[in-house]
Amino acid sequence: MTRWRPDPSGRLVSAALELFEEHGYEDASVVGIAERAGLTKSTFFRHFPDKREVLFRDVPLTRALSEGLAAAPPEASPLAAVAHALNAIGRNYFTLDHRRFSRRRRAVIAESSELREREALKRADLTATMMEGLRLRGTPEAHALVAARIGALVWEIALDRWIDAEHDQEFGLLALEVLAEVRAVVDAH
Amino acid sequence: MTRWRPDPSGRLVSAALELFEEHGYEDASVVGIAERAGLTKSTFFRHFPDKREVLFRDVPLTRALSEGLAAAPPEASPLAAVAHALNAIGRNYFTLDHRRFSRRRRAVIAESSELREREALKRADLTATMMEGLRLRGTPEAHALVAARIGALVWEIALDRWIDAEHDQEFGLLALEVLAEVRAVVDAH
Repeated sequence: MTRWRPDPSGRLVSAALELFEEHGYEDASVVGIAERAGLTKSTFFRHFPDKREVLFRDVPLTRALSEGLAAAPPEASPLAAVAHALNAIGRNYFTLDHRRFSRRRRAVIAESSELREREALKRADLTATMMEGLRLRGTPEAHALVAARIGALVWEIALDRWIDAEHDQEFGLLALEVLAEVRAVVDAH
Repeated sequence: MTRWRPDPSGRLVSAALELFEEHGYEDASVVGIAERAGLTKSTFFRHFPDKREVLFRDVPLTRALSEGLAAAPPEASPLAAVAHALNAIGRNYFTLDHRRFSRRRRAVIAESSELREREALKRADLTATMMEGLRLRGTPEAHALVAARIGALVWEIALDRWIDAEHDQEFGLLALEVLAEVRAVVDAH
């Protein structure tokens, strides 16, 4: 389906997603994924350490998150900097094409506890990246931790809504919506 | 060391923690854990589905969380209800004895990516429990989701501080402290 993609790792991701959808994550093998992508098992392992990892190539996203935080105005509050970074990521990564992929990926992950565990760990990594980016902005330690954790929840809820939206919506705007809900909940008496 | 404990599952947990500390999680076997506890492999599997699960017996905690949310005053805001539940859990479960165990358990988990993944998944379960408890209190869906996620981050940060505290501190008070930091971060401009 997407074998025209020139990059081997992109082809492996597409092939893996197809096989996971067709046979389930458990029953798909690395050899089968490589074959479907027209590549060899050793090529697979040059790109991914294991079968699970093929759905978690988040390196560019992690870097984009760091860069987005660094690029926010110096006077921005920690959460305003997070919102700035999420907006930048939305524009660059959460495109229409990525949305279709994200929907399929999410459905496959939901079916496998192994994949759900890996996803949970990856989300913890994103939180750590956000915390480090806030520290570099001079946010005090305790506030960087709390802001990164709030940023992570905003990210995750906004991502779900972005995937589920009936019409195309900008991820950055959805993130701002969730942030407003966080404010409403925190300020409720 | 703790073989005097009458309940088989408690003995298995203690034995597993000792073996994980001595040899690392990877190199400990279910048979070895059962032997150390003076029990059989089949007894192990009557209590836990796999080796990982032995450090994640959170059923009473999950139930306590639901009960704590239900017992909060009806007029309490979602986050006030969460604080109420965390305080109740702190009094009943996060005792001095549990603190020593928690510290050892956390150190073992930090050393194994398999255990860290399982922990991340369990934390997601606690969030789901909190969300359900808030829904039952009549909190609207979107706010229940956000409040449960904030409750989870308060829980996790407070738990780390409780484990690390130089002197005994009440978990519920630490949770209130973290909640105040959340407010400060969210309201910062």
